Amino acid sequence: MRHLSFTTDYGLSDAFVAICHGVALRTAPGVRIIDVTHLVPLADVRRGASVLADAVPYLPEGTVHVAVVDPGVGTARRAVAIEAAEGLLVGPDNGLLLPAADALGGAVAAVELTDPTPARTFHGRDLFMPAAARLASGAALASLGPPADVAALLRLPTTETRSGPGWLESEVRSVDRFGSLQLAATAADLVPFGPTVHVLLVDAGQQPISVVRGETFGDVPPGDLVLLVDSTGRAALSVNQGSAAARLGVDAGAVVRIFTHGQGRGPGE
Amino acid sequence: MRHLSFTTDYGLSDAFVAICHGVALRTAPGVRIIDVTHLVPLADVRRGASVLADAVPYLPEGTVHVAVVDPGVGTARRAVAIEAAEGLLVGPDNGLLLPAADALGGAVAAVELTDPTPARTFHGRDLFMPAAARLASGAALASLGPPADVAALLRLPTTETRSGPGWLESEVRSVDRFGSLQLAATAADLVPFGPTVHVLLVDAGQQPISVVRGETFGDVPPGDLVLLVDSTGRAALSVNQGSAAARLGVDAGAVVRIFTHGQGRGPGE
Amino acid sequence: MRHLSFTTDYGLSDAFVAICHGVALRTAPGVRIIDVTHLVPLADVRRGASVLADAVPYLPEGTVHVAVVDPGVGTARRAVAIEAAEGLLVGPDNGLLLPAADALGGAVAAVELTDPTPARTFHGRDLFMPAAARLASGAALASLGPPADVAALLRLPTTETRSGPGWLESEVRSVDRFGSLQLAATAADLVPFGPTVHVLLVDAGQQPISVVRGETFGDVPPGDLVLLVDSTGRAALSVNQGSAAARLGVDAGAVVRIFTHGQGRGPGE
Repeated sequence: MRHLSFTTDYGLSDAFVAICHGVALRTAPGVRIIDVTHLVPLADVRRGASVLADAVPYLPEGTVHVAVVDPGVGTARRAVAIEAAEGLLVGPDNGLLLPAADALGGAVAAVELTDPTPARTFHGRDLFMPAAARLASGAALASLGPPADVAALLRLPTTETRSGPGWLESEVRSVDRFGSLQLAATAADLVPFGPTVHVLLVDAGQQPISVVRGETFGDVPPGDLVLLVDSTGRAALSVNQGSAAARLGVDAGAVVRIFTHGQGRGPGE
Repeated sequence: MRHLSFTTDYGLSDAFVAICHGVALRTAPGVRIIDVTHLVPLADVRRGASVLADAVPYLPEGTVHVAVVDPGVGTARRAVAIEAAEGLLVGPDNGLLLPAADALGGAVAAVELTDPTPARTFHGRDLFMPAAARLASGAALASLGPPADVAALLRLPTTETRSGPGWLESEVRSVDRFGSLQLAATAADLVPFGPTVHVLLVDAGQQPISVVRGETFGDVPPGDLVLLVDSTGRAALSVNQGSAAARLGVDAGAVVRIFTHGQGRGPGE
Repeated sequence: MRHLSFTTDYGLSDAFVAICHGVALRTAPGVRIIDVTHLVPLADVRRGASVLADAVPYLPEGTVHVAVVDPGVGTARRAVAIEAAEGLLVGPDNGLLLPAADALGGAVAAVELTDPTPARTFHGRDLFMPAAARLASGAALASLGPPADVAALLRLPTTETRSGPGWLESEVRSVDRFGSLQLAATAADLVPFGPTVHVLLVDAGQQPISVVRGETFGDVPPGDLVLLVDSTGRAALSVNQGSAAARLGVDAGAVVRIFTHGQGRGPGE
């Protein structure tokens, strides 16, 4: 029996999550479900995709990952199950699943799930979880529906990183509970930079800030900004015992420029 | 071994929920617990009853459902265990359990649980969960306490639906995370109506709004109201990619009038 | 296989908790994890310690308790695993674990966990959960690292209770979801007092309030204050169907004076 993981924007106040657990347990008695989060902001497919991609590499091998952030439920958007090199994914074909498939070694096959329409507003219960529970019980991907072209699966625009000599511009990929700004840029992108950098919010009309690089929050005094490589291998701006998001007034999607002295104005501006 | 489900207003910040899980696992090692929600608003028995009734039909057969929303803990209100046709329920006799018993085929027997009073403020830990864990382990209902008259169990006033030719008035039964207003009215109540209806909040002094009927949120443009049958089979007012509760300024308990043109004033006013 | 319990300030919106569950399941397939809470306020070690200590006596015997509220992650603070008489604890050596060790019969041995530094910002994933999963699988404490002196483990200052004839001063240890003020004082401390006491917030310049003692919330009318012994055996101030914290404008750390008539001014002032 494979494990299931479950990621949604259903919240924790209604019966939605428990109903889906129940459906899974009725189809696959004994299956174990790992809740990733059910607090994805409503209909925020991009955030759902990033939190799911963050989680999947650490969950048990072969887990079937069910994700539902689905503002188009019941409409023409397709429902799919995807086989990746190291796991399976089930959910809407709206961009939610592919970053996680990438993190699991890449999508190798997909099928389209067809809407059974008992209710057209709750595909987590009626479509996705039943399909996932069958996969967890050992059903073959091909038994769930007609093949879908992996190359045609909907992919969200990737978060951008651009760079030149002495500068780097990166989107903020996500903001976590600690207020750390996780950038699209990775550890490799930070290699050219020295122990102190300048940071500027593009399009915010602010002065550059000098930021020390470190390995952990405590490498700078409480309240100071630090530029580090976070636990996922991406560049992140944090405040020791504080919130970088609050300090800089920034949310996911903002663009940050990191540069060495004298590179404040570059081709990126 | 039966499953347990667990529904409370305990919140997720204290140790209450984990303590109850621990008590269940000490009494019934290996029992599996499905948390429905612990975010029922404090002491809101009506909301607890509706979320529990929504969940139970989808949980594994024979599950023992423990629910604690209990402003009268430690007072004269009775504590009960109820056998329904398709499951068991344990909690205070304050109206919390009967809608779920109805959803499980109806209450067929009940016993009264007697207060052991180690502490009179935490019956989830001291009374309800130990009784439920014994039931999950196979104990007979009758072994838990003296019989209680099923017909005398406390029942909350039911949410009202009234109708006449071309009009329907229904209480809002609950509001979910997506801001959808679930009505007491059911799919059957909507049969007489055409593809567009008028909607009026009774006692709110507002103008009627024209609302399209649909099967899912995406059947109307983003931001528009839609009247549909929700995943539980009840009538619901939703906004595609928005909140009907916020749009209409409505919470559970409000009364909505749905009518066809010319039936704005009827016997219901 | 032992159970794991898991207590953090990680929140429920990111992938942190699921990642740690996944790491545990990869190391110890089949291990069962009981989430205590992940909503400890950020970096609030004292609150984390009290909620953990509240939970551990009720969790299954021999459980390995992992707790991470760790503003010093990646710095010189030590990481430890502690053997108590009735369970094991894993986390930072910052005071978080010892109250729970006390509640489990006292710490009898400890080892230091050494930082593997794949990422110095996520020791829950990289250090604590792997160590705990090995313990849950049966590894000996000594196999995890060099011995640490139990007497040298960091202990937070204890919450204070002082008393004299007819009076008692106690810190508010914690505030729960119901707004009850749990005091450091215990049932034993209340023995000298009669059925009605006076309550004064020290340093708040307010008039004393007359408060009835009871055994449960419903022993006073809705909206009234009651002084009772809570489910953990500590003195608590509650409001029936209301919040004592809101009524008195008090949070954890405040000092409350309880006294009999005529003892309003005592050695404690």
